[in-house]
Amino acid sequence: MNFGFVDKNNMALLTDLYELTMAQVYFDEGMNGRATFDFFARKLKKRSYLVSAGLEPLLYYLEHLRFTPKDIDFLHKTGKFGDDFLEYLKSFRFSGDLYAVDEGEFLFENEPFIRLEAPLIEAQIVETFLINTMQISILVATKAMRCHSVAKGSRLVDFGLRRAHGTDAGMKAARSAFIGGFIGTSNVLAAEAFGIPAFGTMAHSFILAHDTESAAFEHFAKRYPDNAILLVDTFDTIEGVKHAVETMKRMNMATFKGVRLDSGDIESLSKEARSILDGAGYTDAMIFVSGGLNEYRIKELLAKGAPIDGWGVGTELVVSADIPYLDCAYKLVEYDGEPKMKFSPEKVTLPGRKQIFRRYGSDGTLEEDIVALHDEEVEGTPLLRPYISQGSVVARLPSLDEIRRKALENFQKLPQRLRDIEAKASLRPTLSPKLRRLTEELGGGAIPL
Amino acid sequence: MNFGFVDKNNMALLTDLYELTMAQVYFDEGMNGRATFDFFARKLKKRSYLVSAGLEPLLYYLEHLRFTPKDIDFLHKTGKFGDDFLEYLKSFRFSGDLYAVDEGEFLFENEPFIRLEAPLIEAQIVETFLINTMQISILVATKAMRCHSVAKGSRLVDFGLRRAHGTDAGMKAARSAFIGGFIGTSNVLAAEAFGIPAFGTMAHSFILAHDTESAAFEHFAKRYPDNAILLVDTFDTIEGVKHAVETMKRMNMATFKGVRLDSGDIESLSKEARSILDGAGYTDAMIFVSGGLNEYRIKELLAKGAPIDGWGVGTELVVSADIPYLDCAYKLVEYDGEPKMKFSPEKVTLPGRKQIFRRYGSDGTLEEDIVALHDEEVEGTPLLRPYISQGSVVARLPSLDEIRRKALENFQKLPQRLRDIEAKASLRPTLSPKLRRLTEELGGGAIPL
Repeated sequence: MNFGFVDKNNMALLTDLYELTMAQVYFDEGMNGRATFDFFARKLKKRSYLVSAGLEPLLYYLEHLRFTPKDIDFLHKTGKFGDDFLEYLKSFRFSGDLYAVDEGEFLFENEPFIRLEAPLIEAQIVETFLINTMQISILVATKAMRCHSVAKGSRLVDFGLRRAHGTDAGMKAARSAFIGGFIGTSNVLAAEAFGIPAFGTMAHSFILAHDTESAAFEHFAKRYPDNAILLVDTFDTIEGVKHAVETMKRMNMATFKGVRLDSGDIESLSKEARSILDGAGYTDAMIFVSGGLNEYRIKELLAKGAPIDGWGVGTELVVSADIPYLDCAYKLVEYDGEPKMKFSPEKVTLPGRKQIFRRYGSDGTLEEDIVALHDEEVEGTPLLRPYISQGSVVARLPSLDEIRRKALENFQKLPQRLRDIEAKASLRPTLSPKLRRLTEELGGGAIPL
Repeated sequence: MNFGFVDKNNMALLTDLYELTMAQVYFDEGMNGRATFDFFARKLKKRSYLVSAGLEPLLYYLEHLRFTPKDIDFLHKTGKFGDDFLEYLKSFRFSGDLYAVDEGEFLFENEPFIRLEAPLIEAQIVETFLINTMQISILVATKAMRCHSVAKGSRLVDFGLRRAHGTDAGMKAARSAFIGGFIGTSNVLAAEAFGIPAFGTMAHSFILAHDTESAAFEHFAKRYPDNAILLVDTFDTIEGVKHAVETMKRMNMATFKGVRLDSGDIESLSKEARSILDGAGYTDAMIFVSGGLNEYRIKELLAKGAPIDGWGVGTELVVSADIPYLDCAYKLVEYDGEPKMKFSPEKVTLPGRKQIFRRYGSDGTLEEDIVALHDEEVEGTPLLRPYISQGSVVARLPSLDEIRRKALENFQKLPQRLRDIEAKASLRPTLSPKLRRLTEELGGGAIPL
């Protein structure tokens, strides 16, 4: 019996076979010159921006990447690798440089989140894990920020662990949701590992296990007098709210934290619940809503005046349901000093080692991004900065709180048209003169982006 | 710096906070009677069946679940738990029973994949992890089987690791894809952990790192003479095929495994590629296709006569892109001998300890499923069988090969209308007389399913 956990001791094998067979051939041919790869998203669908996230787990991977004796043994048994190459893998370390955009930064189409420079074999082997780690982190941070952008200051909590795609997705979703403006998560391990505040209410099973709803409420409030958010929809939501109020009155509670609505016509139920709570003098009791939420639904309910104070956003957040994958890629853009470019239809890449320069207007609003060659002199703030040099992390890593604060500040710098969750277009970066020239030269004409 | 890995030593905390706070209250109140929970999917969208998968990792979890001293320490620090409850958690073991449908079995709406019976606290605490493990496994096994159902015997390989939602999703997707009829995966760790055959070709970066396409082909074929599938679309697909043929001729290769097309008009390119390969005498060389594939695209290309021998299905498989989550739930159906039922609108559950009985026609075709009370005498093959008894696995676990074979056999038993990937409806199980009566009694009337 085998769970198939991925951890520090086997993560080197969590890669596509072709990364290793290509590495074997590079090894055979002595092809291990310096290579530069960009990780970026092509056209954005249903998104007017992306929020960078996932960098810290990636840094961990790059610093700790080792092929263990068990890994080598398995690779040997496949019969696909030579002894000298396996010997090389035994002392394999990532020795390259990583330039990255800070977590919590906003990016747009064709802008690299990451520029990785390393000996070709190293740069190739890390590809699969890099994309695997970054994509889901970016997807959820972005989805979370979209929820935040319509929540008008109400509280957002990640309730998605159960519907996340496996254990690691549950961890990454909690971390990314926090970066994207959520105040916490239901995921206890994420709370422990990342220091994210943990929240929770109660389940329908808790109500059903008791003889009456009121008995369930009473038991919970007795243990958690300051933190009891009572689930009221197991039988009938409005009756449930009344039972909650009666129970809190009977128990003479100083605090009534709130109720959770999880089904039915949330607009009218929340209004009626508010009126019952207020009528009983519980004006501070929160109305917390869960069940099938996303940014569109939150916006709609608040626009209709639903008096909702907090949201448990689960499934659609953690799987990024309306767009569960990005059209993203990790592409060779320079090898051994030569800029490289791919020409496949609709998958053309921008060649060369690049930098993104961002320009702000006088009021601080993001005005323009210029993608340029890395050593070009361009006005603007460079976004890619060194995180790893010669295999070691060289940047001070901000705390998750700092990243989150930065993300929320960055959101405020977005022009209004990009903040709209219905926005049809992303910002398109400008190409610098030198990058344009290089792309045209290699591409033999027009730039088909 | 912290990756946030989940493994045997911290998986107990990978749960929603409310599971633990509810457990605390149950503990306070001495409520630890025997509880039965069902894990099932409600209405199926875009699916006419679901393929069961994910059971083996779940069994591992249930057998190995422990709260470590580090876990207890963290829970203590939250201030949310009493010392006596934390003491109880120190020796916590799952001591219950698990009835499950075999991996590789086909299920339909409102049919439980799992019936879990345990002391209430245990049954509650395992909820989050159970859903997290099962949902993604079922989603990918089902999506894979849909690809298999239209592939007409051509080879399907999981290429999705990089776009899976994190590390664990990449592992579960590889395992589930294999169950669903794929012949292997690109994921080396899944190959090692689960014994799944590993496959791979080469990347565009491999071509670009060489001065010419032909040099790249030659280097790869030299090392892997029997297994070189040459990627031909980096510059121009048809030119690429010609370069591949020339290179193999020049090298005088006994075997030419094939070419991979990853972009462009696959229908016409595959036909032209086939004709070039055949014209050069390489009638055995495979045409392998990747890039944006799903069951609809595979069906369409084969219907148009595209001569494609194999498929690398990635992103859309591993995120189950057209339906990235199931409307699934883990619900209390009996507590302390009393059947339980939830009444929330559109979320009504079937009460009681249940069994699924399947009936086949004389030609072996699946004809009817009856959901009944577990001890009801109903004609048909019972699908839920004991996997864990008193906390220990009691069933012989089939190998992954056996599960896969069983899944493919089960597919053959589906009526034709359910095999169609465009099928609009799933099979609806019949409720047995006793279950119907119990549901009506508790529900006070009609059964709103």
